[in-house]
Amino acid sequence: MPKTIKKLAVLTSGGDSPGMNAAIRSVVRTCAYHNIECFGVYRGYEGLIEGDFSPMDARSVRGIINKGGTILKSARSKEFRTKEGRQKAFDKLVEAEIDSLVVIGGDGSFTGALIFNQEFGFPVMGIPGTIDNDIVGTSHTLGFDTALNTVVDAIDKIRDTASSHNRLFFIEVMGRDVGHIALNAGIAGGAEEILIPEEDLGLDRLVESLNRSKKSGKTSSIVIVAEGDKIGKNIFQLKDYIDENMEGYDVRVSVLGHMQRGGPPSCFDRVLASRMGVKAVESLLEGQTNYMVGLINGKMELTPLDNAIKGKTKINLELLRVSDIMST
Amino acid sequence: MPKTIKKLAVLTSGGDSPGMNAAIRSVVRTCAYHNIECFGVYRGYEGLIEGDFSPMDARSVRGIINKGGTILKSARSKEFRTKEGRQKAFDKLVEAEIDSLVVIGGDGSFTGALIFNQEFGFPVMGIPGTIDNDIVGTSHTLGFDTALNTVVDAIDKIRDTASSHNRLFFIEVMGRDVGHIALNAGIAGGAEEILIPEEDLGLDRLVESLNRSKKSGKTSSIVIVAEGDKIGKNIFQLKDYIDENMEGYDVRVSVLGHMQRGGPPSCFDRVLASRMGVKAVESLLEGQTNYMVGLINGKMELTPLDNAIKGKTKINLELLRVSDIMST
Amino acid sequence: MPKTIKKLAVLTSGGDSPGMNAAIRSVVRTCAYHNIECFGVYRGYEGLIEGDFSPMDARSVRGIINKGGTILKSARSKEFRTKEGRQKAFDKLVEAEIDSLVVIGGDGSFTGALIFNQEFGFPVMGIPGTIDNDIVGTSHTLGFDTALNTVVDAIDKIRDTASSHNRLFFIEVMGRDVGHIALNAGIAGGAEEILIPEEDLGLDRLVESLNRSKKSGKTSSIVIVAEGDKIGKNIFQLKDYIDENMEGYDVRVSVLGHMQRGGPPSCFDRVLASRMGVKAVESLLEGQTNYMVGLINGKMELTPLDNAIKGKTKINLELLRVSDIMST
Amino acid sequence: MPKTIKKLAVLTSGGDSPGMNAAIRSVVRTCAYHNIECFGVYRGYEGLIEGDFSPMDARSVRGIINKGGTILKSARSKEFRTKEGRQKAFDKLVEAEIDSLVVIGGDGSFTGALIFNQEFGFPVMGIPGTIDNDIVGTSHTLGFDTALNTVVDAIDKIRDTASSHNRLFFIEVMGRDVGHIALNAGIAGGAEEILIPEEDLGLDRLVESLNRSKKSGKTSSIVIVAEGDKIGKNIFQLKDYIDENMEGYDVRVSVLGHMQRGGPPSCFDRVLASRMGVKAVESLLEGQTNYMVGLINGKMELTPLDNAIKGKTKINLELLRVSDIMST
Repeated sequence: MPKTIKKLAVLTSGGDSPGMNAAIRSVVRTCAYHNIECFGVYRGYEGLIEGDFSPMDARSVRGIINKGGTILKSARSKEFRTKEGRQKAFDKLVEAEIDSLVVIGGDGSFTGALIFNQEFGFPVMGIPGTIDNDIVGTSHTLGFDTALNTVVDAIDKIRDTASSHNRLFFIEVMGRDVGHIALNAGIAGGAEEILIPEEDLGLDRLVESLNRSKKSGKTSSIVIVAEGDKIGKNIFQLKDYIDENMEGYDVRVSVLGHMQRGGPPSCFDRVLASRMGVKAVESLLEGQTNYMVGLINGKMELTPLDNAIKGKTKINLELLRVSDIMST
Repeated sequence: MPKTIKKLAVLTSGGDSPGMNAAIRSVVRTCAYHNIECFGVYRGYEGLIEGDFSPMDARSVRGIINKGGTILKSARSKEFRTKEGRQKAFDKLVEAEIDSLVVIGGDGSFTGALIFNQEFGFPVMGIPGTIDNDIVGTSHTLGFDTALNTVVDAIDKIRDTASSHNRLFFIEVMGRDVGHIALNAGIAGGAEEILIPEEDLGLDRLVESLNRSKKSGKTSSIVIVAEGDKIGKNIFQLKDYIDENMEGYDVRVSVLGHMQRGGPPSCFDRVLASRMGVKAVESLLEGQTNYMVGLINGKMELTPLDNAIKGKTKINLELLRVSDIMST
Repeated sequence: MPKTIKKLAVLTSGGDSPGMNAAIRSVVRTCAYHNIECFGVYRGYEGLIEGDFSPMDARSVRGIINKGGTILKSARSKEFRTKEGRQKAFDKLVEAEIDSLVVIGGDGSFTGALIFNQEFGFPVMGIPGTIDNDIVGTSHTLGFDTALNTVVDAIDKIRDTASSHNRLFFIEVMGRDVGHIALNAGIAGGAEEILIPEEDLGLDRLVESLNRSKKSGKTSSIVIVAEGDKIGKNIFQLKDYIDENMEGYDVRVSVLGHMQRGGPPSCFDRVLASRMGVKAVESLLEGQTNYMVGLINGKMELTPLDNAIKGKTKINLELLRVSDIMST
Repeated sequence: MPKTIKKLAVLTSGGDSPGMNAAIRSVVRTCAYHNIECFGVYRGYEGLIEGDFSPMDARSVRGIINKGGTILKSARSKEFRTKEGRQKAFDKLVEAEIDSLVVIGGDGSFTGALIFNQEFGFPVMGIPGTIDNDIVGTSHTLGFDTALNTVVDAIDKIRDTASSHNRLFFIEVMGRDVGHIALNAGIAGGAEEILIPEEDLGLDRLVESLNRSKKSGKTSSIVIVAEGDKIGKNIFQLKDYIDENMEGYDVRVSVLGHMQRGGPPSCFDRVLASRMGVKAVESLLEGQTNYMVGLINGKMELTPLDNAIKGKTKINLELLRVSDIMST
């Protein structure tokens, strides 16, 4: 295999997720292993445009595998959406003789990478990092598993107080257009209902279901609501509706918010990040470009960035059914 | 010592807090140790009025020391605020030949207990259980330490994402009229500012402080806000004000909510609960009544319920100063 | 589909693992959903022989999804290994008109189930519960993911003190004949070396590797050792060898032990358990028998118990390579 | 108050404990607040002797409040026990114009500090950092509270598996000469017996107690053993004794080991560390020397180093009694 790359840059872009640091560490160490010079770019595409990057060696990434967030910091860059911005970024890379780029982020970040490649022919490779698990080409995005555990831990805590007071809790979790977090965490948290963007349960059926749940002897209930759920305008309106249309429940709302994005990554996310970093660098080394690395049937596979961007992950219908049966 | 009591009832009342189960366990086992019959009352004073209690022995409380919430459930009872309600409760106790009552709860619950004693001469003993730490006569209420660790863990997670994006986060924590949670968790979470009900920092000083913080090189900031803080009407208005009056920060809000009330109690809360349960039962056995057990200078002490109710805990001014110095 | 089963029994057998309770809950609720009577058998095959089982309905399994261990308790039964023991068990089942059995456990438990079926034609279905992940027919056994997170959390803590003192730690993790826990947790914990039963690194290469690691600037090191590792007789002998053959390291040993088997299951294990319980009951309902349910390429699949027992899971060679590259 | 100090050095010495980083952060930021130059010394007294220290400002300690271990690293120095070693250290300090020293560590470290002061008149101040809580002059040493939570979490996990299998577990916890960890964690973990160095229960009484426990209906038991317990030579011999002298229990041993020293500090330890750092620096600023800062009745107080070293903390007898009653 001809050594096609000599200097590689890595950046994190978009919303951060647990495991990004582990992925940075893996990219850097894989470069060290293959004697490729590695540069860390700060604040995503913003830093690329400003030439804000510095060399990283195996020791630069010491002690970060268990840290949430990203030591390279992340940002959303308006300028990189312009041709001028991307030109500046290209110039900075050329100036530093960097010949390949690993982008850790979500679909927005990959769109940028793909356009950048199309315009300048610059070799790019994507690593899917987002807690939402909404990217085609990988069964798990980096941070998804960790976020699930964070959410489930919070549900467990809320369950303690819910069942002490016979309360109904609406708990909002992240996941803008997809219900993966809500569905998995809802099952694991023993939620009575799970409201997701992919399925409009309808308010009447929700009330009906909660009433059935109550009759069956449950004295408290948890309803998990994905951010992007289609039923109500927002979770507080949901509460109001239930307050008006159901008796005997003291209804409360909890919006879990940004703590879902942080915390030490789970074992799964650290291993996944380590594997993805190796695969990303070695794929570039083999002359591949415009791909995203991903986990498919337990193996590291490449998916064209184009597919990763255009596709839409689907909810596992089996899980919906399991959820229904579990709330018997 | 003459054995003054033979049948004791225990209930949890008001908002639940981690450690209540450990306290129930301790009351029950101390009764078993002294051959006192023990009854668990369900749903606080509500259950007392309805005669909803059942005998508990040492094995009834197996495996609950590490569970949040309260197996006896809690409730706020309107009826117990009436003379008629309390009469019913008294009748039920007399009927069951119960001769003493341990109430685990906050100041509202203690007020009920005190009136109940004044009207019927029924021996009562209080155990302070609330995460707010707002009860005079104990340096720590049950659940306070656990809630602090829960809050700090959440702040750590939010810090991960805040520092990855150069964001300013307002984090609302519990503590209606007192800033104990905010102040301690704020220091432990490395917050740049802490807004508490006891002190009106003022919006101008907040902006000034955040600007100073930024100039000193900080790229992200965390501001902890107690529920009952006096500055703004609520935390979202605070955000709006900062959005308008400060540049360069992407401001976000996180309301931690009810998960602060749940979770396995910390070692501290479990030991405290165990000590309080022993002290409560043995004090009743010694003929004491109308007291609350508490931790004062590391020792179990009794405080008249009257004092516990009327008093108001004060914020530790040393902590305020430490917080200021730490955000240098 | 003709309703082939009316009364189903479920038991847990062998070493317990986090997620067993979630699986019991799922079996019980799936039975309730399909109007099948469900019985919980205590202490595995022991309880079956003694007829120690009782009916469970949807409410019997309330609040157990997040509890480690098994509410049905587990045991290893010598008597069930005899024909007489199995005959007794069969008689008890017939007496209670139970017509199918779900066994949650490892390969030993499945062997018992298979023989039981062969002798009496009794319908059995297996759910793989063990932290070791050593069962063919599922990418993940119940409890594996949780155990990994427990181990990684312990490694993180030990790393804190190791790096404060420039120490070398040998950490022993569970996994008798297989290195799955060691390999995954080792990568996630940033271990410098991982010793597993499947691969004999050799003591010389270990010393060499640690020396290289030291030269590269690392001031502390973590070596993960699977219980069943082939190099030394045990981990304390490993320590002695390194003490004698390497300079400049203060070597310590930590044996993580049984805490690896407990704790609240991770989100992954709870969802997996819920899915497996549904699949197990519904497969029996469809007339299937002598299978184990498992996760294959993300889907619930059946594997003949015979294959599950005889097969041997293999270590993922890609992970070994990732581990090598990461310790660059 | 005349500003008596201008340049201050801080070091961590002896065994590390969670909260040391938070204390370093507090010392550094308090120096920044008072415009004192601050130097961090690496590897304790070793680094002092070698002049291995560098200036630290408020930003140097960013993001360490929640990290276990010590960023300054720790070591035990043989050379500092010699007059020559201490002379070298003094020369290095004089050379750098450093005029005061904060030592974070245990009694061994304080002995060194005291001798150093007596020989050279160099102002020193101690901050008690050890998980053992064995230092007179403070109700809590840094790291004690965190270690307790770590131990209790491990006991909870082991309890899961113990109660699933009707097992008796001996769990060894740290605390060489004192039983503070064992006693507190034992109560919080619901242990049936707690063996501590301060009290020789005797093997016969242990067997008797376990038998009583069994008769009362307990099907599993946890015995917490402090490292320095006087009963048996070690925990494995204890197991052998019980194996021989008790029937019906499957006895297991778990040695928790060094993970007790690591992990993110609890809220309590972070607040305590922050308070101690402020008190230490400001006490030196007020011209105090040869003291240790400590928590006494909830307040920051100074204790002469001499007393801190010579004294011996006593076990809280009330806790022993509580433990007895709880295992009813």
